[in-house]
Amino acid sequence: MTKANELTASAAQAAIRAGDLTSRQLIDACLDHTQQRDDDVGAWIYLNPEMARAAADEADRIISAGEATGPLHGIPVGLKDIIDTKDMPTEQGSDLFKGRRPVTDSTMTRLLRDAGAIIMGKTVTTEYALTAAGKTRNPHNPDHTPGGSSSGSAAAVADQQIPLSIGSQTGGSMIRPASFCGVHGFKPTFGTISRAGMHPLARPLDHPGIYARSLEDIALMGDVLMSKDPLDLDMRGHPKANLVEAVSKGAVETPPRIAFVKGPMWEAAEPYMGALFEDIVKKLGSTAREVEMAGIFDDALNCHSTIMLANIVANLGDYIRDTPDKVHKETIRRVAQGNGIAAEDYVKAIEFSDTVDAAVDHMFEHCDVIITPAAPGEAPKHVEGTGNAIFQKLWTLTGVPTLTLPKLQGPNGLPIGIQVIGRFGQDATLFRNAMWIENAL
Amino acid sequence: MTKANELTASAAQAAIRAGDLTSRQLIDACLDHTQQRDDDVGAWIYLNPEMARAAADEADRIISAGEATGPLHGIPVGLKDIIDTKDMPTEQGSDLFKGRRPVTDSTMTRLLRDAGAIIMGKTVTTEYALTAAGKTRNPHNPDHTPGGSSSGSAAAVADQQIPLSIGSQTGGSMIRPASFCGVHGFKPTFGTISRAGMHPLARPLDHPGIYARSLEDIALMGDVLMSKDPLDLDMRGHPKANLVEAVSKGAVETPPRIAFVKGPMWEAAEPYMGALFEDIVKKLGSTAREVEMAGIFDDALNCHSTIMLANIVANLGDYIRDTPDKVHKETIRRVAQGNGIAAEDYVKAIEFSDTVDAAVDHMFEHCDVIITPAAPGEAPKHVEGTGNAIFQKLWTLTGVPTLTLPKLQGPNGLPIGIQVIGRFGQDATLFRNAMWIENAL
Repeated sequence: MTKANELTASAAQAAIRAGDLTSRQLIDACLDHTQQRDDDVGAWIYLNPEMARAAADEADRIISAGEATGPLHGIPVGLKDIIDTKDMPTEQGSDLFKGRRPVTDSTMTRLLRDAGAIIMGKTVTTEYALTAAGKTRNPHNPDHTPGGSSSGSAAAVADQQIPLSIGSQTGGSMIRPASFCGVHGFKPTFGTISRAGMHPLARPLDHPGIYARSLEDIALMGDVLMSKDPLDLDMRGHPKANLVEAVSKGAVETPPRIAFVKGPMWEAAEPYMGALFEDIVKKLGSTAREVEMAGIFDDALNCHSTIMLANIVANLGDYIRDTPDKVHKETIRRVAQGNGIAAEDYVKAIEFSDTVDAAVDHMFEHCDVIITPAAPGEAPKHVEGTGNAIFQKLWTLTGVPTLTLPKLQGPNGLPIGIQVIGRFGQDATLFRNAMWIENAL
Repeated sequence: MTKANELTASAAQAAIRAGDLTSRQLIDACLDHTQQRDDDVGAWIYLNPEMARAAADEADRIISAGEATGPLHGIPVGLKDIIDTKDMPTEQGSDLFKGRRPVTDSTMTRLLRDAGAIIMGKTVTTEYALTAAGKTRNPHNPDHTPGGSSSGSAAAVADQQIPLSIGSQTGGSMIRPASFCGVHGFKPTFGTISRAGMHPLARPLDHPGIYARSLEDIALMGDVLMSKDPLDLDMRGHPKANLVEAVSKGAVETPPRIAFVKGPMWEAAEPYMGALFEDIVKKLGSTAREVEMAGIFDDALNCHSTIMLANIVANLGDYIRDTPDKVHKETIRRVAQGNGIAAEDYVKAIEFSDTVDAAVDHMFEHCDVIITPAAPGEAPKHVEGTGNAIFQKLWTLTGVPTLTLPKLQGPNGLPIGIQVIGRFGQDATLFRNAMWIENAL
């Protein structure tokens, strides 16, 4: 029999509404499993079982009373610990913010609560969502990294401790951990999920995202979170994404034109990745083919680095100047990389990023969806760090929506994701194309 | 009898449509007057009388044939020489671009031609619309500056050589020359006029604008130019401004709440400005009063400088590195000011500018329109430079629409403008409030 914590959010939601499961049973199963696994996985920086159980009891009371419920009613979720919660600490993975209690919820937290979700706790993040790793290990093998920076969010969902969680990506922090941990990850179009109440790392690049164990679950949470918020000045005027509707329609009917790209990222790919993707392209059939990336993309990775590092200095520089002993030496090393950047080069990078945007958009005139690895290969050993973000940077820079599908395995038996990339603002279409690809494999 | 070149564009347009004036008569009058005055004023860097006369003859043929005409049919206009024209040189006021012939029209040029306007020539700009002055003198007194950088555009309209022209403002280059030359100037909301085909100085700050001798004329040209263009990535989603409709409705009926502000700019004001504006506030009646600006604005001028200088280095730095002998030493001096700026400080300035935007918007919760001087005083002597942009920087930074009304005179009998400032995106309302102020004075 399937344990409640193993259910997807959609299945659990259906069972709760049918009276076959209570939110309390679900929360209890999740908390019990978390307790058993926590020493090995270490996905959580803050858990409050009592508060979660009380919230579940209240959710069950609402169901019994026949009161109105939201789309995530009684479902436990985890939030990366850079996302403010008024009833739990939010420490940014740092010593400096140890014990910090925000006064208000972030917009994401508020939207989740309004939808009926239960915030089960805060998941481990690298310090300030940069590279200094926390305690989390890969649930498939504790010698390996879960990836970063959204380490705990990806690991907790992969390990069936919760069905849904939120992470964020400024370099490659959503899609890479999903690949390493073997879950679905979604980085939506830039500016579609509010970052109000989330610690900023690089405002032009910061994307919140979603982890789940099915596309259906991501759609369920996506429709809740992708809501315009005047508190985030970079929100775009996209209409609601309607991901649930897209997923309910199923895969696109006509086989999509699929472009497999290697690009300048491929230099970092493990030797075994070539054969894995040759096989994928073959399986996807006659509408899939390898497409060479134009020369302009060679400079896109540097452009991403210039923008990210300059913003990191602006956002974290004062912490190091004021309290150097409370900042991890790895964070200090990364911030130092941004110290010498001239404003002139930053302005040129911002300008160039518009050209890269146009070049990516141009690619979509000749294909419907782009695929590429979600990581250079399997998760590296924990001691080697959280892995390389090179396969995400271009799509973070250009803000296009990306999904990763946990479809591949490396030589050590660890998961690897297929990254599926859509056109800017066309998140719903990306889901239907991703469903086609999942079906074809 | 009024000479044709002295007519406003609206009056000339009505006369042409009524058959009382031909475009050729209008162009001839403008060219004759220009020729008489050119040695003293020097507003033009390029004039092609033959081409202008041929265009006027064609405009008259279209009228005779009863063919469709646009809102500026047969009206001569001048373009600042940073705005590309496919049939005239565009030299950016520089030695480096001497003789450059663009391959295509800028979007502004195209919109004007589509509306039937005749591009009479290119007006003098300071080098790259920065501070190195060209040959233009103030039409009221050749010992004085017309202001910069849109020197020729403001002077040519003030001197009745043309009824309408285009300039641009990155610091204070639209409103200050209008004030010095005694014409109406309009800097619309940021992102409402396309800059595609205009030499960039600082993309987050560059605003094209309009000079005329009446608000009605500005509205006529504004409705032609304020049109969304995918080639300018910073165009905002404003609906059409409908300035002509606003002006035809006339002044607002209820006296607007008018806030007279001094702010940190006032330190640069000439001693006689206090009495001039006390008198203005008195004349405007009970709904006008002086309002103190919040402390946050003290840092806004530095924020503007950081953003402007960093972009100047990005846009002009290579010219100096590659061909230092072809760049004016004043331009080199200004670019050098931006050389030491760190990307960190630029990112912080961009972030702070959002806070300043919000603070300006907050002021409009307590007033309908803001007034302040359009310049520290009368035009300085030509040898002293093109004047101080301090009274424009805040409104350029925040992108709110501003008009200047040529309503004041300084101790030397030279004109001074009243700058009238509206809420972001509410250009039409600004016009109706400005009409109320013009009527009240």
